[in-house]
Amino acid sequence: MYRAGIAGATGYTGIELVQLIHRHPQMEVGWITSQSSPGKRLSDVHAVPWDYPLITLEEALERADEVDVVFLCLPHAASIEPVRAVKATGVRVIDLSADFRLKDARAYERWYGVPHTAPDLLTEFVYGLCEINRAQIRNAQLIANPGCYPTSVNLALYPLAKAGWLSPLVIVDSKSGVSGAGRQTKLLYSFTEANENMTPYNIGHRHRHIAEMELILNGARANGQPYRFLFSPHLLPVNRGILSTIYVTVPEGVTEADIRQLYHETYAGEPFIHLLPPGQIATLRHTVHSNRCAISITPADPDRPDGTEYIIVATLDNLVKGASGQAIQNFNIAVGLDETLGLL
Amino acid sequence: MYRAGIAGATGYTGIELVQLIHRHPQMEVGWITSQSSPGKRLSDVHAVPWDYPLITLEEALERADEVDVVFLCLPHAASIEPVRAVKATGVRVIDLSADFRLKDARAYERWYGVPHTAPDLLTEFVYGLCEINRAQIRNAQLIANPGCYPTSVNLALYPLAKAGWLSPLVIVDSKSGVSGAGRQTKLLYSFTEANENMTPYNIGHRHRHIAEMELILNGARANGQPYRFLFSPHLLPVNRGILSTIYVTVPEGVTEADIRQLYHETYAGEPFIHLLPPGQIATLRHTVHSNRCAISITPADPDRPDGTEYIIVATLDNLVKGASGQAIQNFNIAVGLDETLGLL
Amino acid sequence: MYRAGIAGATGYTGIELVQLIHRHPQMEVGWITSQSSPGKRLSDVHAVPWDYPLITLEEALERADEVDVVFLCLPHAASIEPVRAVKATGVRVIDLSADFRLKDARAYERWYGVPHTAPDLLTEFVYGLCEINRAQIRNAQLIANPGCYPTSVNLALYPLAKAGWLSPLVIVDSKSGVSGAGRQTKLLYSFTEANENMTPYNIGHRHRHIAEMELILNGARANGQPYRFLFSPHLLPVNRGILSTIYVTVPEGVTEADIRQLYHETYAGEPFIHLLPPGQIATLRHTVHSNRCAISITPADPDRPDGTEYIIVATLDNLVKGASGQAIQNFNIAVGLDETLGLL
Amino acid sequence: MYRAGIAGATGYTGIELVQLIHRHPQMEVGWITSQSSPGKRLSDVHAVPWDYPLITLEEALERADEVDVVFLCLPHAASIEPVRAVKATGVRVIDLSADFRLKDARAYERWYGVPHTAPDLLTEFVYGLCEINRAQIRNAQLIANPGCYPTSVNLALYPLAKAGWLSPLVIVDSKSGVSGAGRQTKLLYSFTEANENMTPYNIGHRHRHIAEMELILNGARANGQPYRFLFSPHLLPVNRGILSTIYVTVPEGVTEADIRQLYHETYAGEPFIHLLPPGQIATLRHTVHSNRCAISITPADPDRPDGTEYIIVATLDNLVKGASGQAIQNFNIAVGLDETLGLL
Repeated sequence: MYRAGIAGATGYTGIELVQLIHRHPQMEVGWITSQSSPGKRLSDVHAVPWDYPLITLEEALERADEVDVVFLCLPHAASIEPVRAVKATGVRVIDLSADFRLKDARAYERWYGVPHTAPDLLTEFVYGLCEINRAQIRNAQLIANPGCYPTSVNLALYPLAKAGWLSPLVIVDSKSGVSGAGRQTKLLYSFTEANENMTPYNIGHRHRHIAEMELILNGARANGQPYRFLFSPHLLPVNRGILSTIYVTVPEGVTEADIRQLYHETYAGEPFIHLLPPGQIATLRHTVHSNRCAISITPADPDRPDGTEYIIVATLDNLVKGASGQAIQNFNIAVGLDETLGLL
Repeated sequence: MYRAGIAGATGYTGIELVQLIHRHPQMEVGWITSQSSPGKRLSDVHAVPWDYPLITLEEALERADEVDVVFLCLPHAASIEPVRAVKATGVRVIDLSADFRLKDARAYERWYGVPHTAPDLLTEFVYGLCEINRAQIRNAQLIANPGCYPTSVNLALYPLAKAGWLSPLVIVDSKSGVSGAGRQTKLLYSFTEANENMTPYNIGHRHRHIAEMELILNGARANGQPYRFLFSPHLLPVNRGILSTIYVTVPEGVTEADIRQLYHETYAGEPFIHLLPPGQIATLRHTVHSNRCAISITPADPDRPDGTEYIIVATLDNLVKGASGQAIQNFNIAVGLDETLGLL
Repeated sequence: MYRAGIAGATGYTGIELVQLIHRHPQMEVGWITSQSSPGKRLSDVHAVPWDYPLITLEEALERADEVDVVFLCLPHAASIEPVRAVKATGVRVIDLSADFRLKDARAYERWYGVPHTAPDLLTEFVYGLCEINRAQIRNAQLIANPGCYPTSVNLALYPLAKAGWLSPLVIVDSKSGVSGAGRQTKLLYSFTEANENMTPYNIGHRHRHIAEMELILNGARANGQPYRFLFSPHLLPVNRGILSTIYVTVPEGVTEADIRQLYHETYAGEPFIHLLPPGQIATLRHTVHSNRCAISITPADPDRPDGTEYIIVATLDNLVKGASGQAIQNFNIAVGLDETLGLL
Repeated sequence: MYRAGIAGATGYTGIELVQLIHRHPQMEVGWITSQSSPGKRLSDVHAVPWDYPLITLEEALERADEVDVVFLCLPHAASIEPVRAVKATGVRVIDLSADFRLKDARAYERWYGVPHTAPDLLTEFVYGLCEINRAQIRNAQLIANPGCYPTSVNLALYPLAKAGWLSPLVIVDSKSGVSGAGRQTKLLYSFTEANENMTPYNIGHRHRHIAEMELILNGARANGQPYRFLFSPHLLPVNRGILSTIYVTVPEGVTEADIRQLYHETYAGEPFIHLLPPGQIATLRHTVHSNRCAISITPADPDRPDGTEYIIVATLDNLVKGASGQAIQNFNIAVGLDETLGLL
């Protein structure tokens, strides 16, 4: 039985982790922290029956050696010191924040607006996009769990980038459920404001998650200049789920059959990639409450068999494959368990 | 053209009033206040095209004589001083808060937890339940606009109470859309918490709105001891609308036909009361985005033609008939206009 | 590995069963039927990655001996012939329809409007309300899986009935998500009709599910005359979940502490009953996407410590504890597995 | 008082028209037809208090001369014969179907899959996009009311097209509430399927509404080759509202200030166009339950002041500005009334 410490369990990713660990046959909860409600029990702050005591992060870090893995579900910039503390004990860390996803401290500062205070650690972390980085994740001690939007975009486009078939300008129109904003009380996320509404935000070249698309896709690209992303997130009135509609152009001569073969080869045997057959388009329903990413490939114009424009749609559950589910998947890979344990 | 001042226009009842005044052929906006955003424009704080400047309440009270009526959309206990100030100018006041609805300062203190600081004014206010108190509303200077839940319950039960046919114990199971909580940021009202959820709260004999049911129905009762209310509100994942399911027992010998006749006589000619025919039950859809209250009468047991148990269902839009629409209706009555102006 | 046959997998309870079987470490899918889409694959009719072939019921019944259990997810009155056929093979049957829940063919005819064509089988079925009938479920071959509404009401009231503390008239105000109506296309259940709406239906003494409340609670009652139920279901704009608000009166002298002790003793050790502590009220969030039933006990009037009126609120997920989850729980009990397998 | 006949009042556009006519100070309902429920009353088929009798289309056409205008809210291809019949009486026709929107019978056949049976009438109809075609709408007898999606796209892009600043390839990512599909019972539009989901459909160059974008924007373009549209509609889990996110590239040297000035000049004085200021993005909330179209202009990359990529977002209520509201606006213009009557 592996024991897990969870730092920050009163947010949505934290409680989702607790749920998934309960379902996992070889994991159990060690300790849980909450900065807002220490001394209370988990069942006091979430509608769940589990009454784990909530302790402070400080107390938890002293008890790091009681667990086999620490999942950090803390706000951005708050993970850096805990990472140093846990790392020193040799315990495995899976950080769900953005703090260690990028490799480049300057990119971090440009997108997050603050200098990175532990640039030395950046290169020690593996970016835990399981299907792409599985080899490095095995036995890794420090894993940066990817962001929700980039997971959908990177899984959708990685085959094209690797093959050198991705156009330089990529237009990504994404829609996300409100839990993606975390468990917070801003007016924008209140029920009466978000319900029966749709709100675009940070559209164009403004959202931090572009950095993770550049990391993976520019890293994978076979040739040419770096890709440029127009990324337009929209707040969608659902609890969970991300749907990314992506407009790409492939080189002339590349056929739909070529593209389908490329995706099937790239993702052969992947338990959590659901490639849809011709004629079907990915919906939120394909993936919500699962650890899957569904991907569909649609030629833009049915009247042009030799057309080069395609619309790739990718969906996932932002709290599962986009956060806590992928964190468990990373753990399973890192320690050598069956990758699907707890995730079916 | 009548000019209206609106105090507190950045909440949901305030912006609904602005919308209704735009639709009203004989009203226009004089000034609008906002304590949270003075100096901004209305279009900065709501998704509307109207760019009225937002002024402070203090400035507004000095400009009370520029308007014909002041609508107070302020939090509970905040209306008392503004009422004194406007009253002194002779301008009409329609208060949408709970501060002047009750007649008895002790009842106010019991339900609201603070002493009433202007008990002298309580008896000067008319309780603006239009269909019941129309005669007193005419020419009234001071009108207390009723609460949303009690409007549904009082309109549903007034005929029975007046006829002496209402059982001593009344069970009211109410469901309300989230806008009923106002425009606020409590976690309970955040989208991810309220959506795909239903939350009972203050159930039994705990909710302040019971005081207004006692006021109207005990006031109307033809005989016997005061009614006792078990009132169970539930937070419903919709933006607008209240549905009250009410369980009553009528005296033996009173038939369904008697009850229907009673309701039809009581509400004959009322433009905003929609009595449903036998076999239909009121839904939110009957009234949302309108100033109507829909009422249905269902005998509890179809196999007992002489049964005495009935289920009365009443619905209304909490922001219209339950707040701003009834406020306009009160204004129309008070100044002698066609009662439906701006409300169709 | 136990193999399951699922008859009627293109509805919501069928697909939920497939999901739960995938999660169950000792179960796998044998065959799946669909009357509407035979010859297609499961992934053609649901947004899931599993491409099981869909066969006809006729073909499945010939292959009954390939599986260890048959789950029947068929419309009411359609289970009777399949039950006869499977029973003859000795394979276990868990029927999710209403066809074998009642013991009395006349009650069936009264509530369902058609004569029961297999009254001989009625008494052979165990009513699979796991927490109450666990002993009879062990080793049972024929199990009638309970209805969703009655499971919430029966679990909520069974302790009171058994103790003789339940008042003769029970008022149950229930709210159900739309999936409770099945996967169908009636206008009432279309998105634009049901969303931002709430619809009461079959209120009073009209809904078939009353028969199951009478079955369990009149069966359990310690004394006196049969209970009478006013049961008012409402269509709630959520996908999943039932919330039943129940108004009861206990005998004088019975205290809140007595009631809490009664519930804790009755449900001691139950893995799927979540009794809420004083001050908390059950919400949908407590149980949706789980096999739990959450129950809260609230004295009606906080100002009357010796009051006898209580409001019991019970919630569950209509597709899990109210259908497919309880079906798996029944299977686990019947074959002697850990009752929670596949249900965490 | 103008009298209106409404053919097909049991769908969503029909009932919205009835609501708007009730609000209009110079219109009243003449007759209403329903093919599915003739002989019933309007309040039998919608949750409204108005009990107009529903007559057949055949009876209505014989009574065409009792009204001043006939609004046709019929399925596609069903308007053609009624148009001939009403036209012969000289009564004004506003057709909300797609049957007379295009000018070219071949384009109709290509997009709608059936030959047009009245090509002679196509050129007699004015395409009723009020802000663009106001001059032709005045005194027109035959008006084709525009589609919902194209109204959002055409109003959003008309200034750019007219100025010759629109790039040849236009990517339109649109999201529509479910009422856009009409009042129908397909499984795709059932609550449990559409809620907590998002479904792309007919993406790329497949949706019929592209024809109306080509009609208006290619008609308006100042120069160069015809525009080509990739148009990706998505089903959004809200009742009402369309949000179109449009990716365009303007010629080098054209600044954001130039674009804003162009839009302000084009739409100066328009009562129903809401141009958002810099920094704000259009949301559904800006327009739902109103006749407005909100338009925002966002430069794609804040770090490139000389960038040429822009994201235009346009929103409207598909049942109001996208259907019945624009139909009333067309009527007001055609007969010379204040254009905003009934629409505030």
